[in-house]
Amino acid sequence: MTDLLQPNERIDQLYANDIQIIQSHEVFSFSIDAVLLANFASIPKRGTIVDLCAGNGAVGLFLSARTQASITGIELQDRLADMGRRSIQLNKLEDQMQLLTLDLNDVTTSIKKDSVDFIVCNPPYFKELPTNKTNPNPYLAAARHEIHATLDDVIKQSAGLLKFNGKLAMVHRPERFLDIVETMKKYNIMPKRVQFVYPKPGKEANVVLVEGIRQGKPDGLKILPPLTIYDEEGNYQPEAKGMLYGND
Amino acid sequence: MTDLLQPNERIDQLYANDIQIIQSHEVFSFSIDAVLLANFASIPKRGTIVDLCAGNGAVGLFLSARTQASITGIELQDRLADMGRRSIQLNKLEDQMQLLTLDLNDVTTSIKKDSVDFIVCNPPYFKELPTNKTNPNPYLAAARHEIHATLDDVIKQSAGLLKFNGKLAMVHRPERFLDIVETMKKYNIMPKRVQFVYPKPGKEANVVLVEGIRQGKPDGLKILPPLTIYDEEGNYQPEAKGMLYGND
Repeated sequence: MTDLLQPNERIDQLYANDIQIIQSHEVFSFSIDAVLLANFASIPKRGTIVDLCAGNGAVGLFLSARTQASITGIELQDRLADMGRRSIQLNKLEDQMQLLTLDLNDVTTSIKKDSVDFIVCNPPYFKELPTNKTNPNPYLAAARHEIHATLDDVIKQSAGLLKFNGKLAMVHRPERFLDIVETMKKYNIMPKRVQFVYPKPGKEANVVLVEGIRQGKPDGLKILPPLTIYDEEGNYQPEAKGMLYGND
Repeated sequence: MTDLLQPNERIDQLYANDIQIIQSHEVFSFSIDAVLLANFASIPKRGTIVDLCAGNGAVGLFLSARTQASITGIELQDRLADMGRRSIQLNKLEDQMQLLTLDLNDVTTSIKKDSVDFIVCNPPYFKELPTNKTNPNPYLAAARHEIHATLDDVIKQSAGLLKFNGKLAMVHRPERFLDIVETMKKYNIMPKRVQFVYPKPGKEANVVLVEGIRQGKPDGLKILPPLTIYDEEGNYQPEAKGMLYGND
């Protein structure tokens, strides 16, 4: 294990599926959004899954527990991708999963167009470019702000990679929901399943999950039951707790 | 009271605000959707409110309890509008409210363009024209299907009537949500507040409430806390019960 961790790195665990993830406060740590996306995505049992904006590989690692599909993560920042590759080793998932250091906009140099069954993406959320003041750390800035990959880039590249009737699932902020559905439609990905996530009872949604089908029919949008993370006392509600710690 | 009711009409009551409504099974009865819309709409205390597709006037009658604004309903079917006018008398709201028998698409013959503060609308939900089999009753068919007024008509006329920064609130089916937000944007009404309504825990949404602002800024969509009507046992949850029967 001596080579597995670099300075200032630690191993976190997602108890729900016994996945271990190498993280560092210096770069980026997965959030509950990655767990929500991995649970929401209606991934196939077999075939090919691509994780765009993979970061340290969290979403793909979580997905590996419930599919035999091959999973390829794409991440621009080599520091993050390298952590993810070591997490793949740590979880002995080398036969199922890989993580490529690659610009999203060059993804078709490594993955064939029209070949992917399912794409997941936890993209940068914020439109505005960061000022030095708000995000002096370039790793965090790139993960959070649309510096290297815009929403349009992500969806355009997804539409190029997906097979006919392949699916794209994203997690994002509700403020961007209209952008997401419009951009999906622009690239002929039809939004089909949406779930809003609320921090606690009586609060507005702070996360949205959207899944669309490439060249899907334009009708039949489903709004899944709401998911509320905490109860009034600040304890996890059963569904969120199950995603994080497993169901008893 | 002898002139108030025609044959086969009855008086129903919304207990939450002591409004009485003349209804008939022969034509159209208000549903909980009208109550949801009246509760959702962020109407002003004063000014002018228009209810498009007013039916028997239910939404406007419910709104009257919480505003001093003048309320004008527009309804194509005179049979329904006539019932609504008698309900206005029954509730002694003649000074605040009127109901005009008028085609939505002719609304600007009676109401000045760019003059309205707030529009509410519970439009026909279904795109498909009814077959004789599914809806032999022409009153019900017109209320439920886009025969005389399409979603595009409703939003186009709303955009014409509203003042700058005036608001439109609609109730509809989630399957049509993408149509609604697209059509609003087409006519420069920016969706700002959305609430999904779920029949019971664990079920998909079956109603959506959308409010937009004419010439509003394109960002800042809010997804309000979810509203679930029944609990697992089929009893009203407190919020829905309060809308129907009042808060104890």
